[in-house]
Amino acid sequence: MSFRHHLAACNNYEPARVVPLFAGTDRVGLLRRDNAEALRQFPGIFEVTGDRVRLVTGGDVETVSRAVDSVVDALVVQKQVPKWRNETFDVAPRWSAPPVFRLDRGAVPFFGTRAYGVHLNAYRWEAGTLNLWVGRRSPEKRVAPDKLDNLVAGGIGNGHGLEETLLKEGEEEASIPQPLTRQAVPAGAISYRMETELGIRDDVLFVYDLEMPADFMPKNQDGEIVQFSLMPAFAVLDRVRASDDFKFNVNLVILDFALRHGVLRPDDPEYLDVATGLHRPLD
Amino acid sequence: MSFRHHLAACNNYEPARVVPLFAGTDRVGLLRRDNAEALRQFPGIFEVTGDRVRLVTGGDVETVSRAVDSVVDALVVQKQVPKWRNETFDVAPRWSAPPVFRLDRGAVPFFGTRAYGVHLNAYRWEAGTLNLWVGRRSPEKRVAPDKLDNLVAGGIGNGHGLEETLLKEGEEEASIPQPLTRQAVPAGAISYRMETELGIRDDVLFVYDLEMPADFMPKNQDGEIVQFSLMPAFAVLDRVRASDDFKFNVNLVILDFALRHGVLRPDDPEYLDVATGLHRPLD
Repeated sequence: MSFRHHLAACNNYEPARVVPLFAGTDRVGLLRRDNAEALRQFPGIFEVTGDRVRLVTGGDVETVSRAVDSVVDALVVQKQVPKWRNETFDVAPRWSAPPVFRLDRGAVPFFGTRAYGVHLNAYRWEAGTLNLWVGRRSPEKRVAPDKLDNLVAGGIGNGHGLEETLLKEGEEEASIPQPLTRQAVPAGAISYRMETELGIRDDVLFVYDLEMPADFMPKNQDGEIVQFSLMPAFAVLDRVRASDDFKFNVNLVILDFALRHGVLRPDDPEYLDVATGLHRPLD
Repeated sequence: MSFRHHLAACNNYEPARVVPLFAGTDRVGLLRRDNAEALRQFPGIFEVTGDRVRLVTGGDVETVSRAVDSVVDALVVQKQVPKWRNETFDVAPRWSAPPVFRLDRGAVPFFGTRAYGVHLNAYRWEAGTLNLWVGRRSPEKRVAPDKLDNLVAGGIGNGHGLEETLLKEGEEEASIPQPLTRQAVPAGAISYRMETELGIRDDVLFVYDLEMPADFMPKNQDGEIVQFSLMPAFAVLDRVRASDDFKFNVNLVILDFALRHGVLRPDDPEYLDVATGLHRPLD
């Protein structure tokens, strides 16, 4: 095993297997060719040609969202999409651009629309050692059950900003008081593009660091994290290198943290792979 | 002006204007086509074909270095290369791989061999404000005279390691005691590829952060920095956005620092451009 293995796993995207999804002149998604073919059933909503798919339904965000949702419903019946029904993501050509439509979270990889998340590195210095809080995901989670995770992480649903998501998830996942979460320091963003069974994940993860007080003990409220532990950061890094114990993208968040805080050192043979492998250019 | 302007300036490389330089099966440089043509004068050392240049001289590092240096001498006479004569860089297919030859620093952009540097962000917290030490480069400097710079920065010459370079440059450029420099925290690396008048800069900058004591006052010893000032980090960032006052690549080092320390905030419209624009993948 290696750090490169995790970087490659999150960046296994192959352009030749995918066609772009356009809304007007903007690319808003990346459809694997089999997924693009499945959209031929809905000619009033999507126009499928050899090299691209176009959203052809018109109207405001509500109207387009309803039309796309009817497609998602049909794809769910065909078992091509696992609909979540409780959360939608904005679909837009760029971060902070006005949305073209809102999409059920379960259908995001099918359409390959860019998804944004927020991850919190909760750390604590103890006797000269940097420690990280690590959570174990519930075996009931749809994505990456049982895997190790950051203390707090969540997708940014439509209408919810970055900070609001961080505050809410901090409370639900680990009972972090909101005034403490507000002290988190934004430290950049990670980006990768990955093909999964469902389609394409085109992900951007905003990363925050938060120093935790010595008396803080996390307590989960939403059933998504079943266990917490405080581990020396170097031991977390060793485990990342040696295993797939962490959720696929959490490996990258930890590598970024280790890099920024000098836990990963320049004499590591994979140092430059990590330093140049966490930020796929956006297009 | 914008942050994007600096990111684009350091990444203006266009593959079509360049052919690779090979040593055996390894690519070790990037020759602009006019520079490649100039190497036709030295058929015993370089073989120039339409799509590549090959180093054909054989032997150990000393022998190859001497052969390449004879070419550099001729190019200096032809005014195609400004020879430095006091510093050579290792040329290798990858960081920490054994060198194929050593190249005069002045000829590095001509051959487009990858160069490594180290930059130190020297910072100080004062009344809740994060400050950065900034230096002004001497008007006598060959590259970027008069421009603002990090407190300490230097190229990694052959035979000198990262830490050794940092200690030496810290002493020469700012009189930082070595025990203090040893506390610097490695925080990643920046990479970019840039065409200049001379050729291609294929640069990797290792970045370190060092918290400076309140009573530290930098003092230059080598004449390379003529003035120092301690500025609030947000003011440094504003100046990066609004001007070309900083050396071209120092803009990127400061953007990386600002990103990692929450000086640049996620609500900045250029946040993701910066987060994904500082680390050109190595190839």
